[in-house]
Amino acid sequence: MRQRRSVRYELYYWPAIQGRGEFVRLALEDAGADYVDVARLPEASGGGEAALLRLLDAPPSGHPPFAPPFLKAGRRLIAQTANILLFLGPRLGLVPRDETARLWTHQLQLTIADLVDEVHDTHHPISPRLYYEDQREEAKRRSTHLRRHRLPKYLGYFERVLKDNARGRHRCLVGSATTYADLSLFQVIEGLRYAFPRAMRRLEDALPLSVDLHDRIAARPGIAAYLASTRRIPFNDSGIFRRYPELDA
Amino acid sequence: MRQRRSVRYELYYWPAIQGRGEFVRLALEDAGADYVDVARLPEASGGGEAALLRLLDAPPSGHPPFAPPFLKAGRRLIAQTANILLFLGPRLGLVPRDETARLWTHQLQLTIADLVDEVHDTHHPISPRLYYEDQREEAKRRSTHLRRHRLPKYLGYFERVLKDNARGRHRCLVGSATTYADLSLFQVIEGLRYAFPRAMRRLEDALPLSVDLHDRIAARPGIAAYLASTRRIPFNDSGIFRRYPELDA
Repeated sequence: MRQRRSVRYELYYWPAIQGRGEFVRLALEDAGADYVDVARLPEASGGGEAALLRLLDAPPSGHPPFAPPFLKAGRRLIAQTANILLFLGPRLGLVPRDETARLWTHQLQLTIADLVDEVHDTHHPISPRLYYEDQREEAKRRSTHLRRHRLPKYLGYFERVLKDNARGRHRCLVGSATTYADLSLFQVIEGLRYAFPRAMRRLEDALPLSVDLHDRIAARPGIAAYLASTRRIPFNDSGIFRRYPELDA
Repeated sequence: MRQRRSVRYELYYWPAIQGRGEFVRLALEDAGADYVDVARLPEASGGGEAALLRLLDAPPSGHPPFAPPFLKAGRRLIAQTANILLFLGPRLGLVPRDETARLWTHQLQLTIADLVDEVHDTHHPISPRLYYEDQREEAKRRSTHLRRHRLPKYLGYFERVLKDNARGRHRCLVGSATTYADLSLFQVIEGLRYAFPRAMRRLEDALPLSVDLHDRIAARPGIAAYLASTRRIPFNDSGIFRRYPELDA
C-alpha cells in the first residue's frame, strides 16, 4: 500500500505580531494544513526568533529571503507574502485551477499588499528604523490622508470587485468559492477596525458586501477555531495595524 | 498551411513617465514582442490617457485594475507590475521553466517592487495626492533614511543574490540566463543613479556584480535599441525616480 506523504510546512515569522505573516497563517489554518509556526516554538526546541534569523542569514537553498515571512516546504524556501500564497493557493485548494483566475486572485492579493504597506506607513512614514514617537507628527498627516482618501479608494475597489462577481451573488472575490484573497480581505477589515475604529464606522455603511464577506470568513470552521485559539496573536502596538487614537481622530 | 497567430499585447500606462510601467516595457522590448503602448498613441487613434482611463473605469472582463500599469492580452486584462511579469515571463522566454525558479524570480521582482515603493515615498512620504512642495521637509527626512539604511540593505541583498548564483559566474540573478528580474534590477540602478547620483557613487564600489549586470543588460540588442529610441521616455520629475538635489545631499 502506498502512502501519500504530505509536506509539513514551516512558517517563519516574527513570533509576537500578526503582521504580514498573518495572511499566510490564515490560509494554512483555513485549510487545516500541517504546519509549524517555527519562531513561536521555544528556543530549546529549535524555535524562537533565533531560528528565523538563522535562516535569514544563511538560507540552505541559496534563495535568501529579504525579510520575513518565509515558508519552508520540503527543500523550498519561499518569501514575500503574496508569493507564498501564490505557491500555497493551489496546494491548499484556495484558488481556482485556471491560470486567468489565479493571476486575478494574485492581482487582488498584491493590491491588498499595497494597502497593507500604506497602513504600515501611517505609523512609520519616515523610517521603519525610527520609533513611532520620533515620527508622530508626520504620522498624523499621513493617517489623515489614508483615512480620507486611500481607505475609501481601496475599500471601495474591493467592494466593487465583490459586486462585479456575479452581481454580488457569489459573495467572494473570485469565482464561486473562497480564495486566499478573501481570507486576506477579512484580515484587512479586522485590522482596520482595530487601528481606525472611528474611520471604519463611517466607511462600513458603503461596504455591505465586504462586511458580509468578513463575517462569513470569520465563521468558517478553520478560521473560527483559529481565532478562538491561542495561536491567534492579539492585535498590539508592534504590528502593522496599531491603535494610536491620535491617528484616528 | 497553419499559421501561428501571436497575440499583440496592449500595454496601458501613463504616457509621460517611465514609472512602474517601465519594468513591463523593458521585458517587452528585450524580447522584441509585438506590443502597443496604448496611451502613447494619439487620442485620434484611440490612444492617450483617455484610453487608459476608459479601461480603468469600465474594464470589459470584470477584472478591474486598481491602478496602471495593466496589460491586455487577447481577452485578458492583467494588472500589478509583478503580476504582469509573472504572466509575460514564460511567454517572452524571460524566466526558467520550473516552478521553483519561477517563484524565486517572482520573489526577487516583489522585493524590487518594495524598493521602488520606498523610492517613490521619498518624494511623497505623506500622500500621493499632495505636491512634493507640500511634503518637502518630510521628504528630506525620509530620503536620508533611504540613502543611509534602505538602499545599502536592498542593493546589498541583490549583490549577494548575484554572488550566491554559481558564485557570481552566471552574472545574472536566477539560473544561467537573463530573466525579467535582471531587466528590473537594471532599471532600478538606472533610476537610482538619476535620482541619487551622490549616494550611488558612494554605494557602487560595493556592488561590482550589480554594476556588471547593469552594463550587460544595457548592451543587450533589444534593450540597447530601445534605450536609443524615442520610445524610452527620459527620466523626469513626474516619475518615481526624481532628481531633487536636496534629497541627495
